[in-house]
Parts: sequence; C-alpha cells; structure tokens
Amino acid sequence: MLLALAGGVGGAKLAAGLDRALGGALTVVVNTGDDFEHLGLSISPDVDTVMYTVAGINNPDTGWGLAGETWSFMAMLERLGGETWFRLGDQDLAIHVERTRRLASGESLSCVTSELCRTLGVRSRVVPMSDARVRTFVLTEQGELPFQHYFVRLRCEPAVRGLRFEGAADASMSEGFAEALRHPSLCGIVLCPSNPYLSIDPILNVQGVRGALAARRVPAVAVSPIVGGQALKGPAAKIMQELGREASAVEAARHYAGLIDGFVLDEVDAAQAPDIEALGLRACVSDTVMRDAASREALARRVLSFIESWR
Amino acid sequence: MLLALAGGVGGAKLAAGLDRALGGALTVVVNTGDDFEHLGLSISPDVDTVMYTVAGINNPDTGWGLAGETWSFMAMLERLGGETWFRLGDQDLAIHVERTRRLASGESLSCVTSELCRTLGVRSRVVPMSDARVRTFVLTEQGELPFQHYFVRLRCEPAVRGLRFEGAADASMSEGFAEALRHPSLCGIVLCPSNPYLSIDPILNVQGVRGALAARRVPAVAVSPIVGGQALKGPAAKIMQELGREASAVEAARHYAGLIDGFVLDEVDAAQAPDIEALGLRACVSDTVMRDAASREALARRVLSFIESWR
Repeated sequence: MLLALAGGVGGAKLAAGLDRALGGALTVVVNTGDDFEHLGLSISPDVDTVMYTVAGINNPDTGWGLAGETWSFMAMLERLGGETWFRLGDQDLAIHVERTRRLASGESLSCVTSELCRTLGVRSRVVPMSDARVRTFVLTEQGELPFQHYFVRLRCEPAVRGLRFEGAADASMSEGFAEALRHPSLCGIVLCPSNPYLSIDPILNVQGVRGALAARRVPAVAVSPIVGGQALKGPAAKIMQELGREASAVEAARHYAGLIDGFVLDEVDAAQAPDIEALGLRACVSDTVMRDAASREALARRVLSFIESWR
Repeated sequence: MLLALAGGVGGAKLAAGLDRALGGALTVVVNTGDDFEHLGLSISPDVDTVMYTVAGINNPDTGWGLAGETWSFMAMLERLGGETWFRLGDQDLAIHVERTRRLASGESLSCVTSELCRTLGVRSRVVPMSDARVRTFVLTEQGELPFQHYFVRLRCEPAVRGLRFEGAADASMSEGFAEALRHPSLCGIVLCPSNPYLSIDPILNVQGVRGALAARRVPAVAVSPIVGGQALKGPAAKIMQELGREASAVEAARHYAGLIDGFVLDEVDAAQAPDIEALGLRACVSDTVMRDAASREALARRVLSFIESWR
C-alpha cells in the first residue's frame, strides 16, 4: 500500500498513474487548504481534481473540471449579475451541491469524498488531509488574500511574500490519512509534483504530519514540480523566485529536507542530480512530463521501482 | 394599476398577458406555499414560473422551467445517487443558487425576487404573497404530505382530503402585496386561473388577505380554472371531485364567494352563466384557453374590459 500527498493538476495526474499501477492499493491525501465557500456551496477544488482525474472523467484540456462539461448555469448566473470569476460547470455543480448538502447534514468531508469516489468508480482511497477547516491565505504585495482570490480571481499575479495555513496547527489528520500512515502494509510515501508551497505545505502543516513523516519507517520520495526551471502548470516557479529562491529541482528537493529519502527529477535537469545527492537524498532521473495516461502510469511505475530500491 | 393573484402555469400565462396588455402596470402576487428546501437550495416554483413566463423565457412545452434548458447537473446528480425526482435544469439552478445565497445573507424573498425580475427584464412587479415561511401540506388518503411530495414526487396521485397552509395565519402580506392593495391607482383585482385549492387558497389564507379582499373598493374577478369539467393542466378537477364537489366553473366561482364580483368562464361552459349569476356575480363568457402569447393577451384584455364594466 502506497501513500501519496497531492494537490491539484500535477499531483492528480501522478495519483491517477499510481492508481493504475497499483490497482487501487493507494491512499491519496489531498490538500484542502484551497477549499472555500462560494455561492453558498462548499467547494474542494483539489479533492475534485484528484477524484476526477483518478476516475478518468477530468477535463484534460483545462486540468480542472469535468470532460464534456456544459456551462448553462454559469451563463445564467452571469445574466443575473452573480459572481462568475470561479467557473462552475453544470456537471461539476452536482458534486458541489451534493457535498454541501451532506456536509450541512453533519457528514465529514472524508465521508462525503469517500461516497463521491465510490459513485464515480474510484478504486483508490482519496481522503482530505483533514476533516477540520484549514484555509490557505497568500501573503502578497497587495496584502493577505484568501487562496482562491489569489489563485483564480487574480490569476496568481500578486507577488507572494509568504503563506499562512489558517487552522492547520489545530487540525487533526483525517482518519484515512492517519490509517494510511500506520498501515502495516505501507511501503512508501510519495510527494506528488504539486506546488510545494500552495499544495503540499498545507498538508505538511496539519498537526502531526511533519512529525509522522520525519519518523517514517518506509521510504518517502518527492517528484519534482519544477522541470527546466519552470512549473509545467501553475505558479510554483514564480513563487520560488518571489520568495527569493532559485526555481529549480534542487530547490524543490531542499524544501522537503528531512521529510524525504529520494527525489525524482526530470531528464532535462539531470545535471542537478549531484546537488540533490549532496542533500543526502537518492536521485532518480526520469521523464516526468505526464502527457497522457500512458506517461502517467510510466512515471508512476518509475516512482514505485525507485521506492523498491530501498529494500 | 391591477393586482393579480397567481400560482403556477395557468396563472403565469394570464399574468404574462396582463403584463403585455398593461405595459407593466401590474402587481402579480404569487403563491409561496409550494416553496421548499431541496438539495440545500431554496426553491420557489410558482414565483419562478410567473417570473419566467412574464419574462418570456419559460419553457412552453413543460409549463415550468426555462426554454433551451440543459440537464447536465441532473445527469451527474443521478450518477451520484442524489435525489432526482424534482428536475432542476442547469440554467434554472442559477436562479436557485442565487436565491439561496441571498436569502442566507438576510435578504427577503421579495427583495431577491425583485432583483431577479429586474435582471430578467420583467416590467411588472412580481411579489411573493409573504416574506414569512408558509408551507402547503396536502392531507391525503396516504397521510399528510409536504406539497412537492404530493405534487411532483407522487404526481398528485393520492386522493386529497384537505389542505393545511402551515404558517399562513401568522404570515404577514409582503410589502409589495400590501402596497398594491392600498395603491390609490388600483383599478381591479384578478384571481388568475390557477388551482383554487393549491395555488390561490394559500394566498387567501395569509393573515389579513381575506379581510382585505372582502373589504375591496375595486372590482375583483376570477378566471375559471375549469373548462368543460377539466383543468387544462394540473389536478384542480381531480381535487374538486375528491373533496366531494362538482368539477365545474360554477363550483370554482362558489369557492371564491364573497371575494369576487365577477367570474370569467369559458365558452364551452356558457350554459353555467346563469348559475354563476345566481351566486350574485357578473358572468363573462370568453375563450379562456391560452395557447400562445396572442391568446394570453386577448384573454387579459377581455378581463380588463370586464373589470371596466363596473365603472
């Protein structure tokens, strides 16, 4: 059994590859720091991206939302003068309405997510990092912004000075997360190629997570979110620079110091392998760009064989 | 200025005709006894039917919902195992989400409805009968049922023994309703051809409404919801029979005794005119079947000239 930590698009792709490679013997713990309440609905963007991608019903063009989506709701909402900066497709909306209804009736986000995954045919266990409310705030040159305002509304334009994960220190790991960590069959931990600051750090800041990872008895590896100095999607490289760091694979590896044993970097960054090994990590050079289902599964298998190298 | 009381499809059609005939010098007071909370959303089916029909964006085939509607939300909700007995189109959903959000933020239903009407281009004033919560319960052979369970879920199949309008006696008229009643330019009151028991009676049972109508200083007329012993749509005739009454225009006229001065009945029921006059009412025989916009406006003009006959 494998445990993967994931955020949005990149993490979801590797999670889908691992799901295929492991036949579902996988727990994916997903960032909920970017969850928010919008139009009265409880929205969990990263949970949905992982769920949709593993279920194979995601929109591969946008990276978020569902394939074959329609937009009648949004068109009418625009006509009504409602808030349209966060795009909600008609099918996607069913997920949010169901989640909101169930949360309001007292179900936990874990329970709701589990049920949604079951109906969508997801074999792997997809769990939120916590059932407690954690909210990411982005400290920018324009002041502190709720995550989605920074990420979607302002398109990550304001320069980032720091991040705050409200509620994380008091949030317990979800039961599924804690179960996976103590599972007797756990064979490894993967930090997916999600944004280290926006997607993985919220998970690492949940109460007890850093301690549990530091005390791991199985190998933990991260897959680089930076390829050739760039993020394949999203503002990871931009944020690294704004925080005064180099946008590089080795800098991403350094970010996870003490929490990982190995680091998977892209072939274009092969020259950084010695620097990564100098951090006390094993380095694994691979094609990390996931273009399609086959390349996702190939990277997943490469990650799994890397983990097996510790045996 | 004219005041019309309306429920669903038939009432909405006449309201649309009156809106055209009067250039918007109209207040339509709409039944909210069939409002309900569903999937966490605040739904006002009759308000929406009137609003959509007067705006000319209603689905003329179903009688409810919007023209050119799509159903992606419903399809996904079905896949998720959600409740699908009440059909919510994708565009329609934007109305419910906006209404729910605004009500939750403390706006009144009157205020929300007014704003929705403005954005949809409705000139006439469409107001809920009350901003207080009133809920219609149908006493049937199967026990007491919330209105939408009787009406939509069970397709009006259980025999009706009676009705209860929970909260009506303590509900104040909406400000728009009260304003219309005391408006110095008010020239008449129309009870639209909506179901007398399910659609008009909830309005009549709101605190002070019967008294205000009984004390009217302008003519009030009703348009028959029964044509040739049948309701054109809905269970009005069936309910009349279940309540031990004759399904006829004259019986509908008798139902409004004391609250109206005149009654518009269809040409096919012309033979009932003397019985209606025997109730102390003026009778107006007309083609009451509203097939299209032209026949809706023609009936509206007929009703208006009938009202003028009291001058």
